[in-house]
Amino acid sequence: MELIPRDEKFYELFERQAANIGEAARKLVELFDHFDDHGVEKRVTEIKFIEHMGDQLTHELMMKLNRTFITPFDREDIHSLSSALDDVLDLIDAVAGRMVMYKVTAVTPGAGRLARVIVHGAEILVQAVAELRKPEKVLEYCEQLAHLEEEADRIKGECIARLFENSNDPIEVIKWKEIYEVLEATTDKCADVANVLEAVVLKAA
Amino acid sequence: MELIPRDEKFYELFERQAANIGEAARKLVELFDHFDDHGVEKRVTEIKFIEHMGDQLTHELMMKLNRTFITPFDREDIHSLSSALDDVLDLIDAVAGRMVMYKVTAVTPGAGRLARVIVHGAEILVQAVAELRKPEKVLEYCEQLAHLEEEADRIKGECIARLFENSNDPIEVIKWKEIYEVLEATTDKCADVANVLEAVVLKAA
Amino acid sequence: MELIPRDEKFYELFERQAANIGEAARKLVELFDHFDDHGVEKRVTEIKFIEHMGDQLTHELMMKLNRTFITPFDREDIHSLSSALDDVLDLIDAVAGRMVMYKVTAVTPGAGRLARVIVHGAEILVQAVAELRKPEKVLEYCEQLAHLEEEADRIKGECIARLFENSNDPIEVIKWKEIYEVLEATTDKCADVANVLEAVVLKAA
Repeated sequence: MELIPRDEKFYELFERQAANIGEAARKLVELFDHFDDHGVEKRVTEIKFIEHMGDQLTHELMMKLNRTFITPFDREDIHSLSSALDDVLDLIDAVAGRMVMYKVTAVTPGAGRLARVIVHGAEILVQAVAELRKPEKVLEYCEQLAHLEEEADRIKGECIARLFENSNDPIEVIKWKEIYEVLEATTDKCADVANVLEAVVLKAA
Repeated sequence: MELIPRDEKFYELFERQAANIGEAARKLVELFDHFDDHGVEKRVTEIKFIEHMGDQLTHELMMKLNRTFITPFDREDIHSLSSALDDVLDLIDAVAGRMVMYKVTAVTPGAGRLARVIVHGAEILVQAVAELRKPEKVLEYCEQLAHLEEEADRIKGECIARLFENSNDPIEVIKWKEIYEVLEATTDKCADVANVLEAVVLKAA
Repeated sequence: MELIPRDEKFYELFERQAANIGEAARKLVELFDHFDDHGVEKRVTEIKFIEHMGDQLTHELMMKLNRTFITPFDREDIHSLSSALDDVLDLIDAVAGRMVMYKVTAVTPGAGRLARVIVHGAEILVQAVAELRKPEKVLEYCEQLAHLEEEADRIKGECIARLFENSNDPIEVIKWKEIYEVLEATTDKCADVANVLEAVVLKAA
């Protein structure tokens, strides 16, 4: 039980969670861009490895939270922020895993567009977490994340509509509908992170 | 930061959220009842517009919550209530959006029945929120919402069983299974609102 | 309003929730093992009955929570624990219900393996809840539940990959993909229970 909190440790753990998301998101774009290579299995394994590191970070943060008496901000918000960051990473890994599980042979342009939105979201997350003590900047980043979520939702809608129009193979529809949905859900989770960050900086204002 | 809360503002925002749900639910029934008309696109757009207004109301409420020091009831319950009301509206919009995205050409009777359960749920929500300070009435409304959820679950089960029995087109099965599920999930979210309301009035008792 | 809490009542209700999960999980394995019998409808109905009892226990616990002033541990954790236990039971019932709704005629070996993982998880839950006041044991059980979730995720992945490889019938793919997902989600919910238990014992340490 630490009576005098080392605030910095919490911030450092959040920053490492965000950095992990950034790395996984970039690997996902690489995976999609070089899908014909022999690199698929390698990149999927690397993303899975990053996701495991993320689990360890989240666990470390939760253990620390449960043992710390005075926290840098609301206990519940620390828990929500760490969980929300972990959810983003889990979904990136879930997309990568499906590429192998579904034996996907070629990536659609729509999936590539969604992966780029995720990289963009991850970059904003990294900055927002790094500047958690600068309220006006955080609020601006949160607005950007909300816009990215809307953009991803629109792209997903177009992709799924096109899928139903063009595909005669129901099995392909099942696989790709889910891949688009998990890609879009990743940006939903980024927006969930934004909601927690917004609450944190507004309460501190 | 308001040290003396203007309670009324929170109640007013909840009432506007509930009224929005009522309006969207009635538009959904209209959409389903007049599906052969040229009115489909118009009604889907109107529901999307109501959903955007709902997002603004939720955002306004959250900003107010984060800046208010003393709240009319538990801070966390205010947050949960507003989110749960927003979730109901989001799902009504999600159903409407799928009618266009999936290029649905005719609405099934089961979907019409589920939409009517949603309108019924929305009417109860409006009353429950308006009478938030009359505990015994709220508890009665919450019980009604729990029954509506069970009814919707039963109707959804029948619809999906029938879909699997009668349809030879897997693409149709994929589309309609999801539409029934989102319709039913809307009543789940109404029951989530009821759970928050129940907690609020019991704590205040 | 009880000013002096009867702690024991909360613990008793959690134990009854866990016992219910154990019973439902064993019925699910029986259902899968004797699927050709005339016993399917009987067992599905029995599981539905257990799920209804679970709803009543959860409701009783929530009512008690809302009326109790001093609780044996964090109010919020009591709420989360009871909800998480209820979610486990709901998903066992959801799997059983789909066997009838989808007119499943034979159970796959993979589903049987997943059901056994659920029974194992339920047995650990029963012990963890019974020994809630012995922190070191609870933490060990939580680790076991995390491992079971990973195992279930791996089995589900294999089952779905095999389903896509071997099945030419998209309708079968839709049905079984969902059954595997709900089975795996049940172990996710067991891990959610573990997360709450971990927080409870660490805070009390």
